[in-house]
Amino acid sequence: MKYCSECGSSVVLRVPEGEHLPRHVCPACHTVHYQNPKIVVGCVPVDEQGKILICKRAIEPRHGFWTIPAGFMENNESLEQGAARECYEEALAEVEMGSLLAIVNILHAQQVHVFFRARLLNNRYGAGPESLEVKLVDEEQIPWDEVAFASTEYALRVFLADRHAGQETYHMTSYERRGWRS
Amino acid sequence: MKYCSECGSSVVLRVPEGEHLPRHVCPACHTVHYQNPKIVVGCVPVDEQGKILICKRAIEPRHGFWTIPAGFMENNESLEQGAARECYEEALAEVEMGSLLAIVNILHAQQVHVFFRARLLNNRYGAGPESLEVKLVDEEQIPWDEVAFASTEYALRVFLADRHAGQETYHMTSYERRGWRS
Repeated sequence: MKYCSECGSSVVLRVPEGEHLPRHVCPACHTVHYQNPKIVVGCVPVDEQGKILICKRAIEPRHGFWTIPAGFMENNESLEQGAARECYEEALAEVEMGSLLAIVNILHAQQVHVFFRARLLNNRYGAGPESLEVKLVDEEQIPWDEVAFASTEYALRVFLADRHAGQETYHMTSYERRGWRS
Repeated sequence: MKYCSECGSSVVLRVPEGEHLPRHVCPACHTVHYQNPKIVVGCVPVDEQGKILICKRAIEPRHGFWTIPAGFMENNESLEQGAARECYEEALAEVEMGSLLAIVNILHAQQVHVFFRARLLNNRYGAGPESLEVKLVDEEQIPWDEVAFASTEYALRVFLADRHAGQETYHMTSYERRGWRS
């Protein structure tokens, strides 16, 4: 951030009075511009046979790698609504959102990823504009070496572990730096 | 948002190519300025006798009303770290963060509130700069008519319901408009 989004003046980085962290502050109109983590919402969509819907990314980062439907939460939607919207946008699939699966703090990217279990409502799916390919896979067909993000892999692994154990619990973890395979 | 924070030009509100929602876009440097929900993190701190630590707000909104320690999550911290930091800032209390208690979508405010159970690590607490008063209360001493926010009340009520039931589950809900008592 270089300019004040309210008045267009150059901002400075300083600790505002009464606070303890440096912020982008406008010397002209005195607006303090806070920057906070963004939320990514996603789900593990499963069909009646237990197959999992995965998407091959058509966009960067990680073009050509596989993921589960997920993306930035928008204003004026709930976490579950956002996860369902992303699933429709990326995989053209309608889902019923289920229980909370995982929350992953991505510290280096200033993001919190929130994943739910989800049930495919019919057998219609396909590649949305941000996907090269969308397919249903059995557990043993998951392309682990081509999974896009550490949080995707985490969500899939805890999903499968819980399914094997016959339970639906939530899981939390944090990543401090990029864990992409090269 | 009126000006581009990257180059200082006036922004326009339009749907960027390949997207479907209007965004603040800079016609000069082509930066798309996304606005997303912010995360508020908090906890219900409990001492060895089961008393709950609550704070009387010294700031707006809801100056003079009671809340549990909570505030905006910062970059480079996890949800639990943020909740512990807020507890120290507002109540000068050190806590051990416990299980996930509640996630509340506050749609009208573009916020997601995330609350944890927490254990007071010692009996030291007091009013931080954003609090007028901080005190430990028994369940029957909670000033329900003077609770600051709908999400605060929700977190306290599900906390108590679970404690009565002898369980620790997580709870999710959404609020679409302001639910403050006048």
